[in-house]
Amino acid sequence: MQLPEHISSAQWQRFKAAADKLQPPFLLTDLGIIREKYLELQQGFDYASIFYAVKANPDDAVIELLAGLGSNFDIASTYELDKVLKFGVEPHRISYGNTIKKRSDIAYFHKHGIDLFATDSEADLRNIAEFAPGARIYIRILTEGSEGADWPLSRKFGCNPEMAIELAALAKELGLEPYGISFHVGSQQRDIDVWDGAIAKVKVVFERLLAEHDIQLKMINMGGGFPANYIQKTNEFHTYCEAITRFLQEDFAEEDVPRIILEPGRSLVGDAGVIVSEVVLVSRKSSTALERWVYTDVGKFSGLIETLDEAIKYPVYAERDGEEEEVILAGPTCDSMDIMYENHKYTLPLSLDIGDRLYWFSTGAYTTSYSSVEFNGFPPLKQYIV
Amino acid sequence: MQLPEHISSAQWQRFKAAADKLQPPFLLTDLGIIREKYLELQQGFDYASIFYAVKANPDDAVIELLAGLGSNFDIASTYELDKVLKFGVEPHRISYGNTIKKRSDIAYFHKHGIDLFATDSEADLRNIAEFAPGARIYIRILTEGSEGADWPLSRKFGCNPEMAIELAALAKELGLEPYGISFHVGSQQRDIDVWDGAIAKVKVVFERLLAEHDIQLKMINMGGGFPANYIQKTNEFHTYCEAITRFLQEDFAEEDVPRIILEPGRSLVGDAGVIVSEVVLVSRKSSTALERWVYTDVGKFSGLIETLDEAIKYPVYAERDGEEEEVILAGPTCDSMDIMYENHKYTLPLSLDIGDRLYWFSTGAYTTSYSSVEFNGFPPLKQYIV
Repeated sequence: MQLPEHISSAQWQRFKAAADKLQPPFLLTDLGIIREKYLELQQGFDYASIFYAVKANPDDAVIELLAGLGSNFDIASTYELDKVLKFGVEPHRISYGNTIKKRSDIAYFHKHGIDLFATDSEADLRNIAEFAPGARIYIRILTEGSEGADWPLSRKFGCNPEMAIELAALAKELGLEPYGISFHVGSQQRDIDVWDGAIAKVKVVFERLLAEHDIQLKMINMGGGFPANYIQKTNEFHTYCEAITRFLQEDFAEEDVPRIILEPGRSLVGDAGVIVSEVVLVSRKSSTALERWVYTDVGKFSGLIETLDEAIKYPVYAERDGEEEEVILAGPTCDSMDIMYENHKYTLPLSLDIGDRLYWFSTGAYTTSYSSVEFNGFPPLKQYIV
Repeated sequence: MQLPEHISSAQWQRFKAAADKLQPPFLLTDLGIIREKYLELQQGFDYASIFYAVKANPDDAVIELLAGLGSNFDIASTYELDKVLKFGVEPHRISYGNTIKKRSDIAYFHKHGIDLFATDSEADLRNIAEFAPGARIYIRILTEGSEGADWPLSRKFGCNPEMAIELAALAKELGLEPYGISFHVGSQQRDIDVWDGAIAKVKVVFERLLAEHDIQLKMINMGGGFPANYIQKTNEFHTYCEAITRFLQEDFAEEDVPRIILEPGRSLVGDAGVIVSEVVLVSRKSSTALERWVYTDVGKFSGLIETLDEAIKYPVYAERDGEEEEVILAGPTCDSMDIMYENHKYTLPLSLDIGDRLYWFSTGAYTTSYSSVEFNGFPPLKQYIV
């Protein structure tokens, strides 16, 4: 088979040298790639602060690397906070990005010196005012148009802009600092124009808050959304940088561009990982069936949950040549839902056999941490670092 | 609010006395209910062998209880096997029910004396012949009509009946014992007639194998499918027993009814569990929004994965009275997919507040074992036993 385009021969040799010594299934993550992606992002958005979304890959080695590179951190829970603090990350480099938090969680972040909180509701805002008095808050707004995202956002997070204005005013009343606005365009967003609409919406909130409430916001948190290299084509990274920078310049005068925060997860760590699995079984459902079922020792519940609805289509590779034929790819559990790809037709060589290794590229994000703890008894997906 | 119909006041008091001492979120499982359900099933199908599907709830206490009651075990992996052997379950009480197995897994089961294997493909059958010589095999056939199942089966498992006949003949050639046929009608199957069609199909395979290959099969494994008490109504358990027994008697003369194996999971342990969670946040997306979002400290990735596509609708209860209003129920992670119910409209009291407990009934099956290992940093769902 052909390697996916974005995998250089040198990269493949590097993966393979490490993988050959290990027993599948596992995720192999290359810190060198994460470093490259981080530096590329920093260069592309040299005016922005990068907050790594720890949930994408919470491995200690990943956190340590990014902490060393000077990254800030977007944190979803007290558990993630503990992980990051362990590496000496100072509180001012941490944002509590989850709008759903227990009062005790807010108090825990406050106790550890974190003073930057996402919010999108009155109840949460009042809790922040009580348990993290004086904190800076940014309000997450709902944005339409996450249709171009492979892992789209729902209405779960964010409020409408009208409510954002009310919340900012209330924050001031409650002794908090209304610091900025955040939005997310959906993960693996392939339509760059979506950022344009979102930034325009933020601009309106900025202007109205200044005019109506004398509140000058200072920050826009543009979330994540930059893609990793899956099967569906995306624009080049520099195209994202140029377009988004232009959108900002069109809406804000150069001297008025607020502080920009980015929260990359997938785009930093996705391409750095490859899941190495083994073919457990190859079968046909009848002697005349046109397609084979290929069952592997990884599945939806041991790392590949983002194949739900076949949302994320990872490049899959086997070291076999010759004629290829359509397959259905499924996991090892007794759960019927544990099928990765049935509608999108992957092809694999006819020579593929039991015991062969299958490589799932660009699986460095949202895999190990989603693994089930013991579904069907199978242990969670292991991660090794090179 | 009203308790769900199937929860008696005594049962509720028992749950609550234990739950009040513990910190949410957790699953509380009542062994007394599992014992009752097991005895009820045994009585309803007094001619059948019960093989508990360990994957439904692999807790040690559950396995120990059922081992003590004389249950057999349907096992999906070597990890589950180790768990069950720990409690002194003899090999003849164990079936390796997963048709997807590594050669090393087959060898492992064989080494531990297990000689009953599910299969549905030539490749797997040849592996069994090589690594568990002489074993009894049963062939899983594809059955249509799992439409009435809330957690339906796909084409992932099973082969067509024609191929089952070929596999049984091949098994004999390879020195294995073609022992029986299995089928599954889908989990939480609410349409009893589906069993009728499946049993008729099995009957044809039995007859043809005898006529064409002089093979007399001895067993039918009818899988699981019996329901737990979720929101959608199902028939009473005795209706299932009577109907399925009648289907068997219609197809097989009394003296010819083969050994019947059942593999209950959900129906034994589902109703025995209640997930106790805490309301983290209640919010509206705008000041005029008609529905509230209720965020809890459990979600799709910490036990409630079967709410995918809102497939399983658990009864949800809060200890509040007064007017109720529609809510969207969502989990605590930053994942937009982590919404349990948005289309099916649950109602909860207007007086519901942050910090209130929410009880998810009938969550004893397929919850803890599916929990993600650390998504967003959150630990997997704990289980306590009463």
